[in-house]
Amino acid sequence: MRFSQLLIPTLKEDPSEAEVISHKLLLRAGYIRKLTSGSYTYLPLGLAAIRKVEQIVREEMNLAGAQEILMPMVQPADLWQESGRWQVYGKELLRFQDRHNRDFCLGPTHEEVVTDLARMNIHSYKHLPMNLYQIQTKYRDEARPRFGLMRGREFIMKDGYSFDATDQGAELTYEKMKTAYHRIFNRCGLSFRAVDADSGSIGGSFSHEFMVLAETGEDTIVVCPSCSYAANMEKATCQMSSASDAITLKEIEKVETPGKRKVQVVCDFLNIKASELVKTLVYVVKDEVIAVLLRGDHEVEDIKLANILGISDEDMRLADDKEIFDATGTPSGYLGPIGLKIRLVADQEVASMSNFVVGANEKNFHLRNVNMNRDFTPTISGDIRKVTSRDRCLACGSELELTKGIEVGHIFKLGTKYSTALKATFLDDQGAETPFIMGCYGIGVSRVVAAAIEQHHDKDGIKFPVAIAPVKVLVLNLSPKDLEISQAAEEIYENLRKENIEVILDDRDERPGIKFNDADLIGIPFRITVGKSFSKDGTIEVRRRSDGETFTLSPADTISTVADLIKKAMA
Amino acid sequence: MRFSQLLIPTLKEDPSEAEVISHKLLLRAGYIRKLTSGSYTYLPLGLAAIRKVEQIVREEMNLAGAQEILMPMVQPADLWQESGRWQVYGKELLRFQDRHNRDFCLGPTHEEVVTDLARMNIHSYKHLPMNLYQIQTKYRDEARPRFGLMRGREFIMKDGYSFDATDQGAELTYEKMKTAYHRIFNRCGLSFRAVDADSGSIGGSFSHEFMVLAETGEDTIVVCPSCSYAANMEKATCQMSSASDAITLKEIEKVETPGKRKVQVVCDFLNIKASELVKTLVYVVKDEVIAVLLRGDHEVEDIKLANILGISDEDMRLADDKEIFDATGTPSGYLGPIGLKIRLVADQEVASMSNFVVGANEKNFHLRNVNMNRDFTPTISGDIRKVTSRDRCLACGSELELTKGIEVGHIFKLGTKYSTALKATFLDDQGAETPFIMGCYGIGVSRVVAAAIEQHHDKDGIKFPVAIAPVKVLVLNLSPKDLEISQAAEEIYENLRKENIEVILDDRDERPGIKFNDADLIGIPFRITVGKSFSKDGTIEVRRRSDGETFTLSPADTISTVADLIKKAMA
Repeated sequence: MRFSQLLIPTLKEDPSEAEVISHKLLLRAGYIRKLTSGSYTYLPLGLAAIRKVEQIVREEMNLAGAQEILMPMVQPADLWQESGRWQVYGKELLRFQDRHNRDFCLGPTHEEVVTDLARMNIHSYKHLPMNLYQIQTKYRDEARPRFGLMRGREFIMKDGYSFDATDQGAELTYEKMKTAYHRIFNRCGLSFRAVDADSGSIGGSFSHEFMVLAETGEDTIVVCPSCSYAANMEKATCQMSSASDAITLKEIEKVETPGKRKVQVVCDFLNIKASELVKTLVYVVKDEVIAVLLRGDHEVEDIKLANILGISDEDMRLADDKEIFDATGTPSGYLGPIGLKIRLVADQEVASMSNFVVGANEKNFHLRNVNMNRDFTPTISGDIRKVTSRDRCLACGSELELTKGIEVGHIFKLGTKYSTALKATFLDDQGAETPFIMGCYGIGVSRVVAAAIEQHHDKDGIKFPVAIAPVKVLVLNLSPKDLEISQAAEEIYENLRKENIEVILDDRDERPGIKFNDADLIGIPFRITVGKSFSKDGTIEVRRRSDGETFTLSPADTISTVADLIKKAMA
Repeated sequence: MRFSQLLIPTLKEDPSEAEVISHKLLLRAGYIRKLTSGSYTYLPLGLAAIRKVEQIVREEMNLAGAQEILMPMVQPADLWQESGRWQVYGKELLRFQDRHNRDFCLGPTHEEVVTDLARMNIHSYKHLPMNLYQIQTKYRDEARPRFGLMRGREFIMKDGYSFDATDQGAELTYEKMKTAYHRIFNRCGLSFRAVDADSGSIGGSFSHEFMVLAETGEDTIVVCPSCSYAANMEKATCQMSSASDAITLKEIEKVETPGKRKVQVVCDFLNIKASELVKTLVYVVKDEVIAVLLRGDHEVEDIKLANILGISDEDMRLADDKEIFDATGTPSGYLGPIGLKIRLVADQEVASMSNFVVGANEKNFHLRNVNMNRDFTPTISGDIRKVTSRDRCLACGSELELTKGIEVGHIFKLGTKYSTALKATFLDDQGAETPFIMGCYGIGVSRVVAAAIEQHHDKDGIKFPVAIAPVKVLVLNLSPKDLEISQAAEEIYENLRKENIEVILDDRDERPGIKFNDADLIGIPFRITVGKSFSKDGTIEVRRRSDGETFTLSPADTISTVADLIKKAMA
C-alpha cells in the first residue's frame, strides 16, 4: 500500500474533543473519525489494527474449542421479557419498534439470543460442552460516551457463551477461557492482570476481569506485589488493620463536642486518630433508611455494601440531612449506633476495634469507650469497605498496591440464571431435563486497541505492539524525485511484500520532516528510511519504534534483518 | 474440527417456514437458524461460507485499489436530512431516538456517512481517486422479509464508494469495479450475467446489476444468446417488431363493436391480430390522469414509463373505471387517442404501425385505419414496453431470451448527487471548489451464499462451489468403534490439517446412512469415506459432491489426490 493513496488524514494539533491519550492519538494518527457522540468510523489503519486483534482472538478461541457464529444485532423484545431484563436493563438498552410496531432492541449483549439458540438446538448431554462466540458490533446507549474507543456507544466486541452439563464441566470451561484470555492479551503485547471481580448484577458464581495496566485507566485495581493476588476494588479483600489484642474495655464516657461534626474535626478536638473513631453513615436503600458503621479513616465500597444487602447499588444512596433527622431525630454529625432504631450494617473491622468514639445521638455530644457487641449489635456485619494502599494482602501479608487498569475482558461463570429463566434444558445422562450451566466471556476488541495505545506511546505518537500494528513496516522514500533513492525504496517495498511482510511505502511528495513526524505518530513498529545516506554510501536505516534503536544496513541485508526483528518481537 | 463437537443441527424434514430451495437447505443443513422474521443466526457452517465470500470480496477490492474501512451502523438523522433522504426513504429505513431524544436510523446504506467522511478529510485533487469499502451487517425493515438469506431484514453487505476528480476518472473507477465484480463472482463459482440496469431512484448516470442465473430468481432478465447483450426488464431494449415498410394509409372507418371491450375480444370480433390494434391505458400520475398507447399484444414496463415521465413509479398507478370515465367521458374499453383531452404517452412502436384499430371514444364503437401523426400526435413518445422472448436483439438481431436471476451485486455511477447535496467538495488542479464525482458498489454477501445454493444443489442437498464451501473436505469415519478404521480416519484428518486443507471429521456415533445423508445435505465438495472397504482391502473412497464422481484410493494417495482435485476446482 502506498501512503499517497491511503486515507490516513494525520493531524498536527491535538483535537479539542479528545481527553485521553489514546483518543487524541487515534484521531491525530488518522486511525478513526467521529461520526457522532460515541461512534466512530474506523479508517484503514484503525480497522487493520482491530482486525489484528480479532484474528488473535479468533485463533485462541478456536484453539480452546470454541466455535464462531454470528447472531443478529437486532433482538426481539420477547426474549428479554422472558429473561426479565427488558424491565430491569436501563437506558443503555436502545429500544425501538419496527414498521409493524413490534418491540426490538439493539443488542448490547447476547445471553438471551444464545440461550434461545441452545434450547432450540442442543437437546442432549452428548452434545455438551458447547462453546459459541461471535465478533460483532455492539451498541450501548451510554449516558456519557467518552474517551474515544474506550467508552463508545458503538464498539466491537467478542462475546462468547458456554453450555455445560455439569458444574464441574462449567468450571473446566471457565478455566480454559481464562487460559485463552491470558494467551490473547499476551499475544497482543499488553501488560495486564486478571483480577477477581464482582459478578453482581449479571449474576453467576464468580468472574474475572482482565485489566490492562495503564495510568489513565478508569478502574482502580488492587494488586499484591509479592504474590499473584489481584482484584478490582469491588471485590478486593485485605487483612484486618485494627489491633485485636486483648484490651480492657472501659466504661462509656459522654463528652461534649460543641459544633464538631466531621470526623477529622472531632478527632482533632478529642486528640485521637481517625482509626479510633467509628463513623455512622446513613443510606436510603429503596424506601428504607439504614445506618452504616465503619472506622473513621475507611471508605464504603458501594458494591460490597449493595451485595451484603442483596440489592443493586443503583437502589441505594446516601441520605441527605433532612432524611437523617427525620429517621433518627438527631442532626447529622452526632449519630452513633447506640439506641438507634434503624437497621445497622457494620463493617467487619468494627468488631476488632475497642474503646472507640461514636456520636451520642444527641446534638453536640459524642461517646468515648464504645465497644461493639457490648454496647450495640449490628443487624449485619461484613466486609463493606474500600481497600487502601496501607492495607496488607490477605494471602501473603505484603502491603497492597492500588493501580489503574482498563478493563479489556471479563469472564463470568453464569450458572443457570439464563437457562432457568428461558427454560433452556437438555436431557442429562439419566434422561432428566436439566438446565444448561452457562458461562459468558467478553473482550472489548476495539477497546484493546485503545488500551494498547494508553500503554504504548510517547510524546511523538503511538508505539504499537508488533502483533496488533496495522502493518509491520513503514518504508520512507525521502526523495520521491530522486530516481536512485526512489528505485531503492520501491525495491525494498516490493521485496517486503514478496516476503508477506505487511508494509506501507510513504511515497508522498512531502518534506522529510513531515514523513518522520507522521511515522512516529502512526506508530508502525519498524521504519525503513531510504534517503541521503543511501546516495552517499548505499546504506539504509532501520528504526524500531518501541525503543528507538536504529540499524544501519545495506539494502541486501535489510529484508532479512527486518524479518528477524519482527519474528523476535512476536515470539 | 470434529462433527461431534460442532453445532451442525441437521434436520430430516423440510422446515415449513421455508419456500425457496436455498432457505430450506440452509435450515436443514444446519447453516442458519431464524431468530425473528427476516433475521438469522449464522451457525458455524453458515458463517464459514460467508467468511469465504467476504475474503474473496476483500482480496479483489484491495487488488482493485479500494481500501477497507468500517463506518458506524447507527447513523444520525441530520446527515439524511442534508441529503433529503430522511423525508423520501420509506419505512425500510428503521428510525429511532436515543436516550436524549435525538433521531437516528439503522444504516441500510452509507452514502451520507461516507460523503461526510470525504468532505471532512479529502481536500485536494491530489488525494483522488479514493475508493473506500466496508463489509458490514445492514438493516432494512422490509415489509415482507422472505426466502431466508435472499431477502432478510438483517444481512451482510459489502458497500463501496468511490470519489473521483473528473467524470473520466469516475468512469475508469467504475470499469475497475465492474472488472473486480466479474472476478469476484467467477471466483465464487457462480454462473452470472452483468446486466444494464436502471439507476432510477438512487440517481446517477448508469449502473449494472450482477445477476446469478437461477430458475428461482425473483428478477427477470433479458439475455441475448448470440452476443454479450444483457439487461434487466426495466432497462432492456430490442428491435422494433412492427413492419415499417411503406404502406398506403387508408381512410378512418368507424365500426360498431357492441359490448366488445377487451383487446382479444375486439380482435376476434374484427378478425385482426392483437398487433394490429393500439390499446389505450389510463394512469393516474400524482394528481393527473394520462393516457398511454401501445400495441395490443405489448405490456407497459412501469419503470420505463415512470422514467419517461420523470417521476418515481411509486407516484403512478392504473386508473379505475370511474376515474377513466370522469377524465374522458368514455367508458373504459372504447378509449382511443383521437380527440382525447388528456396527456398522451405513446410507445415508440406505435409510430411504426399503420392502419391500426383504436377505441372511438364512444361506447360500443372502435375506429379502423388510424395512423399516428396523421390522426393524432402524442405528448411524449418513447420506449415504455416490456421486452418479450419474441423480440430481437438490438445489437445482433438474434431472438432474445428471458431468464430468471438473483441480484447479488449492483454498481452505480452516482455522479454528484450526494456530493452536491452535502456540499462535499475538493480543490481541483485550478484551485476551484468542485464536488466529488461519486460511484457506489454493493454486493449482498449473505445473499451470495443463498444464490450459490439456488444454483448448485440437487434433491439430496447443497453442492457448494469449492471456493465458498465452509470447508473443503468431510472425512467420514463409518465405524467409530472399529479401532483400525478410526485410526485410518484420524490419520487422514490430521494429514489434511497438516496440508492446511480445511476439513471436518465425522466422528459421530451414528449409522453410516445418517452420515452419508448429512454429507450430501451439507454439501462439502469432497467426501472421504473410511469404512468396510478399508478393512477389506485397505482402500478409501473419495467422492466429489458436484458430479458424484468417486475415486478408490490407498491412504497414501488420498491426501495428494484430494489436494489436486481442490486445486483444479479452484483454478
